[in-house]
Amino acid sequence: MPRTETHVTAPTTFVETGGVRFAYRRLGPDGAVPLILLQHFRGNMDNWDPDVVDGLAEDRPVILFDNRGLGRSSGPTPDSIARMARDAITFVEALEFPRVDLLGFSLGGMIAQQMLFDRPALIRRAILVGTGGPGSAGMFSPEVTMAASKIPGDADSLMFLFFAPTPGSRAAGGRYLQRMFQRADREPETTAQTIQSHQAAIRAWGVTNGEAFARLKRIEQPVLIVNGTHDIMIPTFNAFALSQQIPFAQLILYPDAGHGSLFQYPDWFVHDASRFLGHAEPAGAFRRSPTEGEGVVP
Amino acid sequence: MPRTETHVTAPTTFVETGGVRFAYRRLGPDGAVPLILLQHFRGNMDNWDPDVVDGLAEDRPVILFDNRGLGRSSGPTPDSIARMARDAITFVEALEFPRVDLLGFSLGGMIAQQMLFDRPALIRRAILVGTGGPGSAGMFSPEVTMAASKIPGDADSLMFLFFAPTPGSRAAGGRYLQRMFQRADREPETTAQTIQSHQAAIRAWGVTNGEAFARLKRIEQPVLIVNGTHDIMIPTFNAFALSQQIPFAQLILYPDAGHGSLFQYPDWFVHDASRFLGHAEPAGAFRRSPTEGEGVVP
Repeated sequence: MPRTETHVTAPTTFVETGGVRFAYRRLGPDGAVPLILLQHFRGNMDNWDPDVVDGLAEDRPVILFDNRGLGRSSGPTPDSIARMARDAITFVEALEFPRVDLLGFSLGGMIAQQMLFDRPALIRRAILVGTGGPGSAGMFSPEVTMAASKIPGDADSLMFLFFAPTPGSRAAGGRYLQRMFQRADREPETTAQTIQSHQAAIRAWGVTNGEAFARLKRIEQPVLIVNGTHDIMIPTFNAFALSQQIPFAQLILYPDAGHGSLFQYPDWFVHDASRFLGHAEPAGAFRRSPTEGEGVVP
Repeated sequence: MPRTETHVTAPTTFVETGGVRFAYRRLGPDGAVPLILLQHFRGNMDNWDPDVVDGLAEDRPVILFDNRGLGRSSGPTPDSIARMARDAITFVEALEFPRVDLLGFSLGGMIAQQMLFDRPALIRRAILVGTGGPGSAGMFSPEVTMAASKIPGDADSLMFLFFAPTPGSRAAGGRYLQRMFQRADREPETTAQTIQSHQAAIRAWGVTNGEAFARLKRIEQPVLIVNGTHDIMIPTFNAFALSQQIPFAQLILYPDAGHGSLFQYPDWFVHDASRFLGHAEPAGAFRRSPTEGEGVVP
């Protein structure tokens, strides 16, 4: 795939595996660990910010895909994070990557956690944005539920859900929407079946018990957690809680920002994400505590 | 002051003002807003990490000083954050800087907050490391109180208080201690009077009421909050709480680290702090919400 492809120009291609025909796009140069992007609630490949995708693809292969039932991928969408993660693992394995990095945003961050639980050997590092662990608190306030139930999602609901109610955040949100609609051949609208399944999966994730939460303690990979300081969809406290559970987590909260912080500050996010994905392990860091074993996380 | 001075070589100089003879050191080039370093509980100028100080002084004037009663500054040390902040303001004004940036670590972060409350026009941006707001929770556990009461502070208590109980964090802590003792002409030991006053001031800060906490909402400056994910002195939750109160706060929590995260990852910290101090304001960011006025924070 030539390096010159961008988010706007990269062709949609297909791979058939596990009973699903997955639509995906690949950009960026070979030679580094591929980064798999896992999309948010009711979003397809087109909903990524071109500035974020192209920035990340400067230094590594970046793979966008539609999970089962989304965009041009065959359906239906399953109604649990566990089955969405199984589909995502099937997709990654079909591309024959031995090891990948993950960038999971919102629902995609839940799927990324589940992939870390279920197939740790496949994953080198993970970036979790605008998301929370099993049992996340404060999701589905009445206002959020109403805005998130609109079919199709409109610009107003996206502004409300993704950006803070400040002039700076809303102006950045408007610029994101402009960038996001640059691509001409758009994916089909997300269906009511997918939206209902996504909602059911997120609700079930939010009421999982402490045992599921405790699995976070066993994640061995370095994890970068990112959110805005004021996320109303998956309240920011859940990002802090993740940072307290995952042993080698680091946390960044961007200022004056909500759920869509990575689209509000695309340059900052690309800088921070690339640094996290690209840096050498600090000598002696990312080790387990003495009581848990001494293995360096590769 | 020539650019070639370093943390290890910068001479100690003095300024007399407000009834105090303040000891201080200046390094770094002119031409940018000076950065004033506010030191931690029972620490003097020598306790800064040379890698952090020299890294920050690449691009700006950096001022280390001993507040009243510490090191070679005349005493006695007052027993409240408010009076320590008043002394620090007096010191900064004696150097005739019209506007400064602050880096406050631990107790120094509390003093920095108080300076933002009391003399906002003096401060452009602030970095608060390993600290918490008025009413901070969880300080003074029995183990921490015991380790923090040793006079003089020894390497073991510093390792316990500043670093996580993991091989990686402890190895980084050992390297910090080696760097920290490179300077030959050491400041006098911190006195029992100073340590008791520091403890009284921090205890009083921890039991201040909600009205004091609410002052954080009125800070107009961009603020970068930094800590390790697992600080036992000023538990990390307090850093998260600061990020929820200060309107233009951003938060970074470093992995596998405690109170002394900036000394565990000096390169990362210098990079993040320099970026925060040096970047242009994102267009439209750092504005107050519509209900609070539209002024851009300079």
